[in-house]
Amino acid sequence: MGLAVRVRLDLAYDGTDFAGWQAQPDRDTVQGRIEAAVGRLYRQAPGQRTPVVGAGRTDAGVHAEGQVAHFDAPAAIPLAGIRAGLNALLPGSIRVLAAAEAAPDFHARFGAAGKTYRYHLLTDAVVSPLRSRYAWPVGDGLSREALEEAAAALTGRHDFRAFFAARPGEEPETPVRNVVAARFVEAGNELIFEVTADGFLRYMVRRMVGTLVAIGRGQLPSDRVAEMLRDPGASGPRFRAPAAGLRLYRVHY
Amino acid sequence: MGLAVRVRLDLAYDGTDFAGWQAQPDRDTVQGRIEAAVGRLYRQAPGQRTPVVGAGRTDAGVHAEGQVAHFDAPAAIPLAGIRAGLNALLPGSIRVLAAAEAAPDFHARFGAAGKTYRYHLLTDAVVSPLRSRYAWPVGDGLSREALEEAAAALTGRHDFRAFFAARPGEEPETPVRNVVAARFVEAGNELIFEVTADGFLRYMVRRMVGTLVAIGRGQLPSDRVAEMLRDPGASGPRFRAPAAGLRLYRVHY
Repeated sequence: MGLAVRVRLDLAYDGTDFAGWQAQPDRDTVQGRIEAAVGRLYRQAPGQRTPVVGAGRTDAGVHAEGQVAHFDAPAAIPLAGIRAGLNALLPGSIRVLAAAEAAPDFHARFGAAGKTYRYHLLTDAVVSPLRSRYAWPVGDGLSREALEEAAAALTGRHDFRAFFAARPGEEPETPVRNVVAARFVEAGNELIFEVTADGFLRYMVRRMVGTLVAIGRGQLPSDRVAEMLRDPGASGPRFRAPAAGLRLYRVHY
Repeated sequence: MGLAVRVRLDLAYDGTDFAGWQAQPDRDTVQGRIEAAVGRLYRQAPGQRTPVVGAGRTDAGVHAEGQVAHFDAPAAIPLAGIRAGLNALLPGSIRVLAAAEAAPDFHARFGAAGKTYRYHLLTDAVVSPLRSRYAWPVGDGLSREALEEAAAALTGRHDFRAFFAARPGEEPETPVRNVVAARFVEAGNELIFEVTADGFLRYMVRRMVGTLVAIGRGQLPSDRVAEMLRDPGASGPRFRAPAAGLRLYRVHY
């Protein structure tokens, strides 16, 4: 099997009931579910495992509309059969949107040039329970102008350490990222924060949104974002938006 | 307490995890949750119960965007406090959208002149898991023309027995209803069946939608709706759409 085909998967999932993307022992994760489905699709022996590499390691409760992953097919299956076959083996909360043959050197994670995340806010006074599973209800008291001004301050190449939280024991990585776009989009009665960067630190989007909403509510001064980027080590309150509102929207190659 | 105030509640709920509206022993129901919240709000003794009367008894798994209910307040609480108080005591899956004083003879159920239900269909080839909790994924192979023609045939005063299923031991009620509007509305990538009638029989909307979708797929001839209305006792296949796609949308007084 020297010539295994590399398969690219485009994925969407409802992260509510998963302990995030990354496979962990005794936890229900998206990667774990997909690797199990791949194993069954290719009739692998119980001990065998085909690694499925994702572009981004979304945290517990975070959703995806456009996650990308790859794996090396252990046997030849027509591509049309992979999507349908995996979807038949996966729970309804994880869907393979597309399966395609990728170049042998395609790498979902290291090949990604950037990602776009979307964070959904609900600004109704009372929020419909049919909307709150995938959004953060923040009430109707936000200053839209303050939000937009603060979002604009996030763009550019900065040290984003003030928007980062390391996993226990995690090596600190370079905290510099290039945010190429950060803006608010209105869609129905949702206000969506859309941010694109060459990469994201852990909790970076949720800390951005937590800070922006605090500014929109007047809990923080509107120049707080610029201050956090200028002096990332300075103390000050930290805000983190809940996982439910966040979606990995697109991966750019 | 001869002058108890009658309170009207406008409600929305995610019905996924409830055994329907109606309170039942040892089952988690919407009415049961609301009556428990009312009891706590008014600090009633454990044995006491203030009945909360709903306009429609939605089935297990069915949602509501505009359910209406009433109860007689056992004590005076400012109206503004009722909505916030109940929402603090209810799970996030049930929300009181509004609480208002009603006329003493207002009756949520018997006073309703009609109701509008909406049934959400997803017509994408592969359905996002962020959408399937509140809609029925039916694929992209439906004939829109056949759907609309069959929906139009539902309007008018008819014997809807062919779209009805009695509860075990339930007395058969008059099966004649007046459907004043039945149409499809497009919203984003959803196709919504919206139906308004003076009243609905059990499973009536879900059987309507199941039949319409079967017609749209070519599994049933397009005149099947007219036939079921003309000869409600005739045998033939019965289709019922899943609960998740259905929402009680409005109650008309």
